[in-house]
Amino acid sequence: MEDKQTEISQLGEFGLIDRLTKELPRVNESTVYAVGDDAAVLSFPADSEVLVTTDMLLENVHFDLTYVPLMHLGYKAAVVNFSDIYAMNGTPKQITVSLGISRRFTVEHIEALYAGIRRACEIYGVDIIGGDTCSSHQGLVISITCIGEAPKGTAVKRSGAKDTDLICVSGDLGAAYMGLQLLEREKIASAGQKDFQPDFSGKEYIIERQLKPEARKDIIEALAREGVRPTAMMDVSDGLSSELIHICKQSDTGCRVYEDRIPIDYQTAVMAEELNMNLVTAALNGGEDYELLFTVPLTDHDKVEKIEGVKIIGYITKPELGCALVTRDGGEIPLKAQGWNPLADQNQD
Amino acid sequence: MEDKQTEISQLGEFGLIDRLTKELPRVNESTVYAVGDDAAVLSFPADSEVLVTTDMLLENVHFDLTYVPLMHLGYKAAVVNFSDIYAMNGTPKQITVSLGISRRFTVEHIEALYAGIRRACEIYGVDIIGGDTCSSHQGLVISITCIGEAPKGTAVKRSGAKDTDLICVSGDLGAAYMGLQLLEREKIASAGQKDFQPDFSGKEYIIERQLKPEARKDIIEALAREGVRPTAMMDVSDGLSSELIHICKQSDTGCRVYEDRIPIDYQTAVMAEELNMNLVTAALNGGEDYELLFTVPLTDHDKVEKIEGVKIIGYITKPELGCALVTRDGGEIPLKAQGWNPLADQNQD
Repeated sequence: MEDKQTEISQLGEFGLIDRLTKELPRVNESTVYAVGDDAAVLSFPADSEVLVTTDMLLENVHFDLTYVPLMHLGYKAAVVNFSDIYAMNGTPKQITVSLGISRRFTVEHIEALYAGIRRACEIYGVDIIGGDTCSSHQGLVISITCIGEAPKGTAVKRSGAKDTDLICVSGDLGAAYMGLQLLEREKIASAGQKDFQPDFSGKEYIIERQLKPEARKDIIEALAREGVRPTAMMDVSDGLSSELIHICKQSDTGCRVYEDRIPIDYQTAVMAEELNMNLVTAALNGGEDYELLFTVPLTDHDKVEKIEGVKIIGYITKPELGCALVTRDGGEIPLKAQGWNPLADQNQD
Repeated sequence: MEDKQTEISQLGEFGLIDRLTKELPRVNESTVYAVGDDAAVLSFPADSEVLVTTDMLLENVHFDLTYVPLMHLGYKAAVVNFSDIYAMNGTPKQITVSLGISRRFTVEHIEALYAGIRRACEIYGVDIIGGDTCSSHQGLVISITCIGEAPKGTAVKRSGAKDTDLICVSGDLGAAYMGLQLLEREKIASAGQKDFQPDFSGKEYIIERQLKPEARKDIIEALAREGVRPTAMMDVSDGLSSELIHICKQSDTGCRVYEDRIPIDYQTAVMAEELNMNLVTAALNGGEDYELLFTVPLTDHDKVEKIEGVKIIGYITKPELGCALVTRDGGEIPLKAQGWNPLADQNQD
């Protein structure tokens, strides 16, 4: 692909690590000592809590390198971890990056992957503080752990939703899933054709949502500005239905969500029609949107209404009412966790 | 192997996680909120620093399930991370556990692996606070991140060794490597034989060193008791030679280590003779001992001599003298980092 390719065995493990971690910036005061020892050393203010989240990504389970550029993959691998920290109402501060690399990857490939991770860290103000690099017999393995920070007692769990709370979601849903469908369709269409050029015009948004998602740092900042502390929050990685059921189960509540309130982008709708898929199903069950789903007390109605990019989609009920979608005609359909379950089907959708 | 085997797809990702993390104990005050949300919440005392280390283990690169029992593997995967925290003069407090699991593993297999992890956590006083579980197309992937704690300013890096410092090492070296050689030999001998019974009598120690290593919590405690703070420290995972070169490079020093001072167990010596291998080479370059290698000022000589299981093996020199082994006949051989480099040779030894 690229011009010059260097075998990883030429550098060895330590040589590769040196090259990847050369001149890593350090932007957070809490990062005392980073890469290069048995462990990194961090120091947080006394009134802070430390948040820890981790994600593992495996080639051909979570990503397909036939259409995912390595730089985008690195960016996304970092951002999905940041998203988990924002979903706790915290700020991501550090990550460790562990890579399992098979022989078909060159130094330049891994540099591209790492460049994506570094770019994400630069944009979100996060330090790379360590990791592990080893050989893999099959494919690429990425395991990132993110450390975040939140003032003591301000972290928001999934379990605090209360009857009559409003359910809010940021951005729009289903776009990343429809982007994946499009990429998969073009992959099949291109099979065996050397000079195949996929046509993504008019579909840039859903492609970007799949390949280069962002974490909603802006929403966390807006909530703080408005003085709103959600009662429960999580990010939408497995699909709205699945996440709503998590919040309701852990909060011991039920919920009602209105079909006509679910935010869906125009490109998502067009793509669903083209592929003859049910749009609401895609928005409810498509994963990887990395939007924030949260609940606030009724009294915060006016404050959340003011926040750009946040939509109120329903409300929390008593547990005995269960979790349901209120359809356009006023009917109720029980929500099901049909989200992404890579253990059940070994497949991404 | 076992009696009843349950397919993981019967439980799904969330079902499996629920089963593995059921009734997880919480022993550390710093663990505020563990498994079950977007991130775990930790809270450390104001005068503490937070240590972070991570290790990735891949099947057939780092372990061979033909002779490594899953419970031992889980135990070892946790302990090698604890060892990195002790090597910073800290105390391990929390881990996250990410697993990539292929279809040939059942729920019972993963429970055995997790039981080993839980046992290690129980013995070392560490809480499991989260992780990620996903399917893998090929083999087992284990990625563990460990969070530790040390009073502010007490963490020991690799870079603090000074000219004339004493070089000390705990326990004995080369045993885990010889254990691996024995296991590999018996694996080859048993190939194709259904009822083959390997004979490990008289070699239990080296087998245990390979399959179920321990982290030297006791040495860190003894050093604290004696009031000794090492100037530099790391754990011996890649072999003594390689680690000494790390310390000297990062401290900008040289070193002299005496061949006749390197601690070697009797079983290690017997096995090396049986396999016609050079014993000192095995002790210098064999990895996975997880002993502590550290340097102390000359003035601490009497204090470290008192600590059981610690041996003074040499001293730190000016950088221009380089790193060398002083042989029994008084000759000098430059040390080389021939340690385990899984990126260069895709092999464990």
